[in-house]
Amino acid sequence: MSTETAIKHRIVNGVDVSALMDTIVAIKSNPEIAKFDFRATNTWMGGDKNRSIIKDFTGALEEQRDGMQSFIADNGEPQVLLGNDEAPNPVEWLLHALIGCMTTTTVYHAASRGIEIGAIDSMIEGDLDLRGFLGLSAEVRKGYSAIRATMRVKTKADAETIKSLTAMSPVYDVVSRSLPVSVHIETY
Amino acid sequence: MSTETAIKHRIVNGVDVSALMDTIVAIKSNPEIAKFDFRATNTWMGGDKNRSIIKDFTGALEEQRDGMQSFIADNGEPQVLLGNDEAPNPVEWLLHALIGCMTTTTVYHAASRGIEIGAIDSMIEGDLDLRGFLGLSAEVRKGYSAIRATMRVKTKADAETIKSLTAMSPVYDVVSRSLPVSVHIETY
Repeated sequence: MSTETAIKHRIVNGVDVSALMDTIVAIKSNPEIAKFDFRATNTWMGGDKNRSIIKDFTGALEEQRDGMQSFIADNGEPQVLLGNDEAPNPVEWLLHALIGCMTTTTVYHAASRGIEIGAIDSMIEGDLDLRGFLGLSAEVRKGYSAIRATMRVKTKADAETIKSLTAMSPVYDVVSRSLPVSVHIETY
Repeated sequence: MSTETAIKHRIVNGVDVSALMDTIVAIKSNPEIAKFDFRATNTWMGGDKNRSIIKDFTGALEEQRDGMQSFIADNGEPQVLLGNDEAPNPVEWLLHALIGCMTTTTVYHAASRGIEIGAIDSMIEGDLDLRGFLGLSAEVRKGYSAIRATMRVKTKADAETIKSLTAMSPVYDVVSRSLPVSVHIETY
């Protein structure tokens, strides 16, 4: 970034807030810019293992990541779930997606409000009763029954403000409409 | 695996069906065995980037993966979403978790019914309107509004049977109770 660009662009929490504001203005004038279509392909590799390729998507009226390198991600299962434990299992990936989304969302929305974040360290856990997956009880759901997240955030903002930012997260929206997700914020 | 063990264990689709049946018998006698608590920690690394560590969990009345290597997974954002595009973003990870879970679930449940699977190749995509995340419209949800999956499965079983197996997936349970997930199965 040139000095001129650096002066023009206000960066908070590593997020280019000027570009974020430009995006909001652009979307207000043409809501089609806001429409995204994310994609993945997946191939079974035998037993507990399968592999996703994450690459191109549509967004901001264009094909994105065209000609760029793909991301490769594997699913496995631990030995107690009859796998070879070569990769996290899908319900663990769901926790990764959820806590990651809550973190990025907090950082971006804090930046847009001028709230500086110094650090975020989180823990997330989910309760899953295998009787649902195995079809042993109609009363037990197949997925998580509850998820709990604790985020420790270095900031001058109060915990309630930070908590309201986490609730803007797209993955939080998906999961919290399906099951109880409790979020505990500690600031320091 | 010794020859004796190999004879004792019936393997279908790379899944040890004998061990699966033993697990079901054990859970029926003590449902506490079925209770799992999966976990992840996450650290913000600046801007769009954060990193999860996925390791130990509780399940089958024990601490699992104790003393084993951790899995490390990063979240990023593409440039159009003001990131450095060094890793998939959280909503892409959600697609990975979902299609991976549907694949593993299909393979395991097919195995338990003696249905042989030769291959599974899938495509998944989700619609997301950024106006929700940005708080520009109360009518637009923050997460995906719809997800579509197509799975191409090499098997003698019919498509409807395979589709019923995908619906046993824990991540499918979480996501499909929150938004419409359409699943199209092609067999060959």
